[in-house]
Amino acid sequence: MKRLQKLRKSIAEKALDALLISQPENLRYLSGFTGSGWLLISGRNAILVLDFLYVEQAKGESPGFEIMQIKQDLHEWLPGLVSDLGCHKSGFEANLISHDAYQKLAEAIRSKQVNLELVPTTGIAERLRSIKEPEELVFITKAVELADAAFEQSKGMIRPGVTEKEAAWHIEKTLREKGSEGVPFEVIVASGPNSALPHARPTDKTIRSGEPVIIDMGARVGGYCSDLSRTLFLGRPDKTFQKVYDTVLKAQAIAIEGTKSEMTASEADQLARRVIEQAGYGDAFGHGLGHGVGLAVHEYPKLGPRSSDSLADGMVFTAEPGIYLAGQGGVRIEDMVVLENGKARVLTKADRDLSV
Amino acid sequence: MKRLQKLRKSIAEKALDALLISQPENLRYLSGFTGSGWLLISGRNAILVLDFLYVEQAKGESPGFEIMQIKQDLHEWLPGLVSDLGCHKSGFEANLISHDAYQKLAEAIRSKQVNLELVPTTGIAERLRSIKEPEELVFITKAVELADAAFEQSKGMIRPGVTEKEAAWHIEKTLREKGSEGVPFEVIVASGPNSALPHARPTDKTIRSGEPVIIDMGARVGGYCSDLSRTLFLGRPDKTFQKVYDTVLKAQAIAIEGTKSEMTASEADQLARRVIEQAGYGDAFGHGLGHGVGLAVHEYPKLGPRSSDSLADGMVFTAEPGIYLAGQGGVRIEDMVVLENGKARVLTKADRDLSV
Repeated sequence: MKRLQKLRKSIAEKALDALLISQPENLRYLSGFTGSGWLLISGRNAILVLDFLYVEQAKGESPGFEIMQIKQDLHEWLPGLVSDLGCHKSGFEANLISHDAYQKLAEAIRSKQVNLELVPTTGIAERLRSIKEPEELVFITKAVELADAAFEQSKGMIRPGVTEKEAAWHIEKTLREKGSEGVPFEVIVASGPNSALPHARPTDKTIRSGEPVIIDMGARVGGYCSDLSRTLFLGRPDKTFQKVYDTVLKAQAIAIEGTKSEMTASEADQLARRVIEQAGYGDAFGHGLGHGVGLAVHEYPKLGPRSSDSLADGMVFTAEPGIYLAGQGGVRIEDMVVLENGKARVLTKADRDLSV
Repeated sequence: MKRLQKLRKSIAEKALDALLISQPENLRYLSGFTGSGWLLISGRNAILVLDFLYVEQAKGESPGFEIMQIKQDLHEWLPGLVSDLGCHKSGFEANLISHDAYQKLAEAIRSKQVNLELVPTTGIAERLRSIKEPEELVFITKAVELADAAFEQSKGMIRPGVTEKEAAWHIEKTLREKGSEGVPFEVIVASGPNSALPHARPTDKTIRSGEPVIIDMGARVGGYCSDLSRTLFLGRPDKTFQKVYDTVLKAQAIAIEGTKSEMTASEADQLARRVIEQAGYGDAFGHGLGHGVGLAVHEYPKLGPRSSDSLADGMVFTAEPGIYLAGQGGVRIEDMVVLENGKARVLTKADRDLSV
């Protein structure tokens, strides 16, 4: 319930008397409920508002929370419920509620003449989630260790003659048989020119010698995710590729070494970006340095050149610079770090050897 | 490009001169692109607007489409792009665009004094998708056959002493090793009292004899999904459970037999609901009769008591009545059907035997 207390403090600071939560990871973080539904939090009440499908599940997962079963759409129950609680100024997650749902809500409030002001908010629960509690770090560390172990165990599968899909499925099986709760995202195995696609999905292409292969994989333990990328080269890389690899490795090392808890997320990004720009590959690093990881595999903070997020002790995020040369291939090296005592401690232990 | 033509017809009928598509399955349906991004369609243009991450992928997947790479948020590029195309009244998917994104768009249009009216729309592409083309039905049929075969092959795993999670993982492995592109949703294996939770997730609970077990599983082939539920009973069911099972089976048979292409979706739902109500279990059938299945596992039409959708030839959907008795157990039997020549043809072939 400490998390609810913190949330109530944030609600009060924004001069709201209630907040409607619908983002699934926010629901889980605040109530333990892992299904989909709504959580309405006021100074006194914390009510899970759920469809029939989820009521029994919530009773088990969220002791201490009121549960209300509804059949109707949001606009049919929210105005009445909020005002029954004596609240007149309620926040909602404006990046989650669709334009359509909001219009219906506003219309219902008008037509029923309910004394209720809806205030758009973003990121209230997400910001709480970005600072990890020790118990959360235990799960994250387990998820990192599981991905590390699965990578080491399945690395031998990345060899000429195997297709990307076969290799990816082998990695996923390894992750799950080691206890990962599903996989937080589809395993990527991208070889040769495919490795130049940062979001490549595994294809039927056969992995050949003389090619780079990017592996991007993660595990989930206790709901918490990990995220790991490595680039392998089958055979001896040529000079250009070796330079690209060394540049990415150096960019990552400098970013991790230099990232401090008092920085902004864009400053951290800049540490890696400068190294890659100086090597002449600035245009080929088309994504940000990294992203927060927790109950969601992409969460606060966002580390990129345009990010306005700030870093702080307790945050867990990836450091994953990359260089992608269209038609040729790419390199990405991704570790997870936690900010502690002002600096970044690397959680990932998986080997960084390029050649296999 | 026939799909684009149909979409352009819908756009014109709504007196719009452009439509912004962001829903991932709509993107795939219209352009072949399987990543995330935006598709802006006007009378003349069809432009995929993408982050760097997806540009190379789209070039391969969507020949014939213009591709525009952007770094900015929606509100920073949309107003300019739409007016550059000479469009002044553009629809957007109001159930997909968040309240926050819409506000930023509206503000950008105001502050830049762009001559552009944004019109909220819902379900334009989804309605096109609900009527399946013969090529789509080929993939759906393959996905159904794959799930049927995986069910038959892994049914033997549903036996006393195995945990729900072990059984679900075995089923998922079977699906994927038979060629399913991932799984469209997490396999459900829910035993004993857990089977009374319609959206149960597999737990570490051991399956025991004398228990009902609900299995809900699906495959994906060529992007298209299937969805299959069966209820097994380990041993000999008691009279009550047998009655519940027979009621669900009868409700499903009557619904499938009676569903006609000219009905509304709520009338089809009513066919099954009446049988269950007459048996005295009306309150225990807390979800709708079914849902459309295609590129998404849940899509148009929605078959439920409150649905306003209409049925038509070419639609593919599930018929999945259920009865859930809290603390005791549940039954759900789910087949997929296609509406052809005015009536429902059952696609699912998996065995319906209760006892194992």
